[in-house]
Amino acid sequence: MMRGKLITLEGGEGAGKSTLLAGLKQHLLAQGVDLVQTREPGGTPLGEAVRAIVLDPAHRDMGAESELLLMFASRAQLVRECIEPALAAGRWVLCDRFTDASYAYQGGGRGVPVERIALLEQWATHGLTPDLTLLLDLPVATGRARAAGRGEADRIEVEGDHFFERVRAAYRARAAAEPARFRVIDATLTPPEVLAAAIHATRHLFGAVA
Amino acid sequence: MMRGKLITLEGGEGAGKSTLLAGLKQHLLAQGVDLVQTREPGGTPLGEAVRAIVLDPAHRDMGAESELLLMFASRAQLVRECIEPALAAGRWVLCDRFTDASYAYQGGGRGVPVERIALLEQWATHGLTPDLTLLLDLPVATGRARAAGRGEADRIEVEGDHFFERVRAAYRARAAAEPARFRVIDATLTPPEVLAAAIHATRHLFGAVA
Repeated sequence: MMRGKLITLEGGEGAGKSTLLAGLKQHLLAQGVDLVQTREPGGTPLGEAVRAIVLDPAHRDMGAESELLLMFASRAQLVRECIEPALAAGRWVLCDRFTDASYAYQGGGRGVPVERIALLEQWATHGLTPDLTLLLDLPVATGRARAAGRGEADRIEVEGDHFFERVRAAYRARAAAEPARFRVIDATLTPPEVLAAAIHATRHLFGAVA
Repeated sequence: MMRGKLITLEGGEGAGKSTLLAGLKQHLLAQGVDLVQTREPGGTPLGEAVRAIVLDPAHRDMGAESELLLMFASRAQLVRECIEPALAAGRWVLCDRFTDASYAYQGGGRGVPVERIALLEQWATHGLTPDLTLLLDLPVATGRARAAGRGEADRIEVEGDHFFERVRAAYRARAAAEPARFRVIDATLTPPEVLAAAIHATRHLFGAVA
């Protein structure tokens, strides 16, 4: 059995992740890929319960340490219960955010030392690295303007521009450090253009089965 | 302002922690102590939300890594929001379980490496160590027989005897390694005897203010 592929989508608020996820899923299914779609935090009953805590605006006093530990509690369960079994069974996994998001939000955004995140990544995911990470990149102001019409902001969306600038910078730095894994997509393009770029980026994943 | 004291209660199922907590609280208040009572996991809105997840029998597939991270997410918030401000204000804190419980349950019980727990302790509590830890110790079978009449078991209470034997062994090993901080109380004694032993153990905490 050939091991499946893990594709992750990353990006800030209003970058168009949901639209791209839907389009990319449709494309991969049309290619005959046996696909599992999931998200972070969440993706398992435990993870969804953690997600409800993490995004709840009532927990505005949550410390950065607690936020980081909750994210990895969800992630460890997602890897154990969903991602690893799927990949081992030859299925592909399309995940809305993964470990890179902790480096961007808790590392870049909150200032948690990168070494802690790296250690938690090792414990929780055993170093599981995506085969492809699509980073939807766009200026903070553009993303926030797009996201503004979506109704009540969650606990993270209420952060200020400086926070999201740090998140974006951390994402871009990770992409620059791992060019073979990351594909940075200009999220100011139209949705069809973004989808086309994403589809193009997935082509090499089919290499071995073509 | 003199810093307050942190007293923690530890012990397995059916050890009589709740009864002792009530009696000890009454005693300390009668001594004029400005006391905060709290518990783990829990003690803050975030911690109580985490507690609900951790104890929910529906999450029976929770991995040991996730359980450990959730416990420390709750703990980091409790230290930040409740314990540290109270101690700094000269108040005493009486806490139903603390970091020793992670060494006993996730370390001893689940087999999580002690080094991980020690590192998380440093991150989440900045090494905060209780001034006194009361360990209510009793044979597993005795404790389980006592706890059996309490209604539906939570996700941890449904574990088998071998699990609780490992928990007890880990607790006793920690007490043996830190005799100045721990006071091991024979929990097969009557509640008044247990309370008397606990009160006796707290006497040295009043030394500096007597």
